[in-house]
Amino acid sequence: MNLVLFEPGELDAPLPRGDVRARHIVEVLRLGVGATIEAGVIDGVVGVATLTEVGAAALRLSFEPGAEPPPLPDITLVVGLPRPPSARDVLRDATTLGVRAIHFVTPQLGDPNYATSSLWKTGEWRRQLIQGAGQARCTRLPAVTWGRRLATVLAESPATERLALHNDEAAAPLSRWRRADGGSGVLVAIGPERGWGPRDLVALSEGGCSLWHLGRRVLRVELAVAAALTLVGAARG
Amino acid sequence: MNLVLFEPGELDAPLPRGDVRARHIVEVLRLGVGATIEAGVIDGVVGVATLTEVGAAALRLSFEPGAEPPPLPDITLVVGLPRPPSARDVLRDATTLGVRAIHFVTPQLGDPNYATSSLWKTGEWRRQLIQGAGQARCTRLPAVTWGRRLATVLAESPATERLALHNDEAAAPLSRWRRADGGSGVLVAIGPERGWGPRDLVALSEGGCSLWHLGRRVLRVELAVAAALTLVGAARG
Repeated sequence: MNLVLFEPGELDAPLPRGDVRARHIVEVLRLGVGATIEAGVIDGVVGVATLTEVGAAALRLSFEPGAEPPPLPDITLVVGLPRPPSARDVLRDATTLGVRAIHFVTPQLGDPNYATSSLWKTGEWRRQLIQGAGQARCTRLPAVTWGRRLATVLAESPATERLALHNDEAAAPLSRWRRADGGSGVLVAIGPERGWGPRDLVALSEGGCSLWHLGRRVLRVELAVAAALTLVGAARG
Repeated sequence: MNLVLFEPGELDAPLPRGDVRARHIVEVLRLGVGATIEAGVIDGVVGVATLTEVGAAALRLSFEPGAEPPPLPDITLVVGLPRPPSARDVLRDATTLGVRAIHFVTPQLGDPNYATSSLWKTGEWRRQLIQGAGQARCTRLPAVTWGRRLATVLAESPATERLALHNDEAAAPLSRWRRADGGSGVLVAIGPERGWGPRDLVALSEGGCSLWHLGRRVLRVELAVAAALTLVGAARG
């Protein structure tokens, strides 16, 4: 937790001792009254929180607001819905690396049951975003959807530059991709473990995506996401 | 398991049903006699294994050897020894991305107890390499050391290009790094969670490392390793 994040309003209320952030402050950082931490309001400012009270049931913090962090990079990540442990890592790591939206679509060769996992039914998916943003010292969370069709997500996206990862002779190395002049937003689509199916490839083509690859070594979905976002971020400058 | 890896000689012997690879073949892939899988010999050839017997206690495979995979990229990864769960991910993911060696050094701001974890005392560290290599469809494993001094590792490395990640005004964006003509091997050094300490920075400087950064967003060690290896791999072409 490089930056401890709070929902709007939460910093004015007592923080129960059982809360993961209270435990981090008291048990990991071992802070006492008067100590300060870097804190932020989700989708708001970064600032400094001073610990003003350590009670038996709750902590109290006094927050001094600072500046808003810069906007998130205009990158939209589209991922073929992977099994829940992979989705969890993608939610956290893509948020740390910095994207404006993550859409987990239902691919042809995927398992639709993945969309009904507890990751999505409880608020767990959002806790992963908060963890990823706090790691990056950022307050901003990406917009997230899951279980929609690839064609729908592509049709609704405003991104003018669209890349899909696919291991195929027609694909070019993603390390050679360069941003077009005047491009407004990049969409990167990464297949599920078993890759994009023929129907997905039609949707990607009709949705304006060009095909790129990450080399001959086959990466897990989580690692492909990290590598692709790193290269796209580097090419955006 | 994109490629199921075996130690030299292991393919000629019965494979006990309790072995993780036997369980993968029978319980996950649900293969029967006559079915084939892609298999490889660690640090040797890739080939095709045919399931010839499914016994109550063991499987038998018949292996048709093929070609050796290409050599690993001449990249040496140096990491400030992180907590064991992070080290586990680094072992697996750096192997998937492709490096020739991984050295986990004891940094100034690290916890020396991390070197005595069961990850290192049992063979668990090597199982992570095998998992990472199988994912990449490669038989080659990197050389691995842990608990040595940073200065020692730098003194012994033959790499002519040496980069250290450090968030500092003196550092340049790693995305701008380009390989020198005639360079023979790249070393990339990544600090522990709390960063390189002053003594580490002296060792890095005396060891010929230039300083680079991955942007203003702070990444977990595992994610910094993935991002750095992606950018260095891309710049090597």
